[in-house]
Amino acid sequence: MRQTPLLLSSILGLALAALAQDPLPSWQDTAARRDVIAFVERVTKPGSPDFVPPAERLATFDNDGTLWSEQPLYFQFFFAVDRVKAMADKHPEWQTQEPFASLLKGDMKAALAGGEKSILEIVSATHSGMTTEEFQLVAKAWLATARHPATGRLYTEMVFQPMLELLTYLRANGFRTCIVSGGGVEFLRAFAEATYGIPPEQVVGSVGKHKFELRDGVPAIVKQPGIEFLDDKEGKPVAIERIFGRRPIAAFGNSDGDLQMLQWTAAGPGARLCLYVHHDDGDREFAYDRKSSVGKLDKGLDEAAAKHWTVVSMKNDWRVVYPPK
Amino acid sequence: MRQTPLLLSSILGLALAALAQDPLPSWQDTAARRDVIAFVERVTKPGSPDFVPPAERLATFDNDGTLWSEQPLYFQFFFAVDRVKAMADKHPEWQTQEPFASLLKGDMKAALAGGEKSILEIVSATHSGMTTEEFQLVAKAWLATARHPATGRLYTEMVFQPMLELLTYLRANGFRTCIVSGGGVEFLRAFAEATYGIPPEQVVGSVGKHKFELRDGVPAIVKQPGIEFLDDKEGKPVAIERIFGRRPIAAFGNSDGDLQMLQWTAAGPGARLCLYVHHDDGDREFAYDRKSSVGKLDKGLDEAAAKHWTVVSMKNDWRVVYPPK
Repeated sequence: MRQTPLLLSSILGLALAALAQDPLPSWQDTAARRDVIAFVERVTKPGSPDFVPPAERLATFDNDGTLWSEQPLYFQFFFAVDRVKAMADKHPEWQTQEPFASLLKGDMKAALAGGEKSILEIVSATHSGMTTEEFQLVAKAWLATARHPATGRLYTEMVFQPMLELLTYLRANGFRTCIVSGGGVEFLRAFAEATYGIPPEQVVGSVGKHKFELRDGVPAIVKQPGIEFLDDKEGKPVAIERIFGRRPIAAFGNSDGDLQMLQWTAAGPGARLCLYVHHDDGDREFAYDRKSSVGKLDKGLDEAAAKHWTVVSMKNDWRVVYPPK
Repeated sequence: MRQTPLLLSSILGLALAALAQDPLPSWQDTAARRDVIAFVERVTKPGSPDFVPPAERLATFDNDGTLWSEQPLYFQFFFAVDRVKAMADKHPEWQTQEPFASLLKGDMKAALAGGEKSILEIVSATHSGMTTEEFQLVAKAWLATARHPATGRLYTEMVFQPMLELLTYLRANGFRTCIVSGGGVEFLRAFAEATYGIPPEQVVGSVGKHKFELRDGVPAIVKQPGIEFLDDKEGKPVAIERIFGRRPIAAFGNSDGDLQMLQWTAAGPGARLCLYVHHDDGDREFAYDRKSSVGKLDKGLDEAAAKHWTVVSMKNDWRVVYPPK
């Protein structure tokens, strides 16, 4: 028993250190930060009427524009463009076939003239014809070297430092943090665990077609052209229901594509946190909302105001945007 | 420090008790049991060349015929039949429309004369037109009261006691135990947590169509007629890859519908466990394999022999089949 006082003081010391340590140092002391902390305290305090058991503490995050940047184009699209260039030797027909021909000439505007159809063709052609394991290697190699045209950073260096802190803070409070993104699920998994600490089974995204086949007796799952499920807008709550089978108690987005996920989250019983990241910081990141072709936030901004959801001003609520290099 | 010897002896006592406690008491001391234990010890022993970190200890289980019985028809089909009867008042057209008319007259043979098309129509009609939350209530109410025509047991009392022990044993060794079933994912979730200790996000199954809609401003996910994804045969490894994003290191099935999942599992690097439950116990359960229309095990039996997978004889390897009532 002699060591008890010493042991007790050690435990107390650790507890005080933990209390003193700010879990969200990159967040200004504004309403957004207070909303987040008040919500987490309400649902984690034992005996509180809003207490939620850890198994039900599901928090879903959009990725593009919510966890990392998405301008001037979704980063996965830059990956697809680089893949077209890398694969062009094996596709001589692309020299004359749109949208590939314009893209190979460096004329992005002409390549995208066909709108979503062109994007789908470019993504389909570059994300198929290989096994899921081969795709992981290709995507990881690109992420390790490719740099953003405006910032010169690796794409994984364009994640939002305050959101990394938020993910860690939620997990420390027993939440399961998941991605629910319009991006391709396999592309997301190529960096989600190393970058966000989110393991593959907690990543939901758009899904291409797949074919299981035996190659000389060895099974392989081969990515096929075409999209099987688009995880955007109404698709997000549907995917959450299908894959997790429970409703989130907290949801984080930045665009109208996330609105249905936030509506679905908000409509459950008990305490809820719905949060929009508003891109209003043209100096440190990009400023866009109601009229942007990428990450348009229009209806969502109105609904957030009407329903008193938390809207983060990147300019006013965040001390820093990207992690220090 | 005075209490240390007492404390130490308590800890030692607990450890010895744990060692002495058989984790698989319903398994005979035969090769099947030894295969399972040898595999678990290989992948969990720190420093072993076959060690697998807990995050990668994914074990996938078929449900029908692997975790509970499936004769004379899949239990979910009995649920659908009871739903047709319960819903008949609101569907006067069913009195003359097949397969519903025969089913309502109690002529199951005629109702199923149309084969898979009839089954799909019956399942579609009874599993749609309600929200996912309403469906949970309906399925749970049925499971709480409906009884199997041959045994008189609740369906959830027809789970296999040795498999319940295996699930618990794997989880105690850091495995994530998941269901990957041809059954409907929402039907499975209505009992998987209470019956098997498997939470909703670890249940993969066949998926119907869904529609997200706002009803007077309140969001709902409404089940639609039709099947979006059939989680059987080639569908199983594809669903595992899409949803979990990692390959199982252990897989458990009982039919040719599980063969591709076992092939996919077996083909990964390192130690693997592929196990078939063979229904050869007509006295305590049902005896069927190569020629059964439900749970046919033909190609799988040959491949298991060729690849030295573990085949459990329910008759010889299990002391009991169902839990005591």
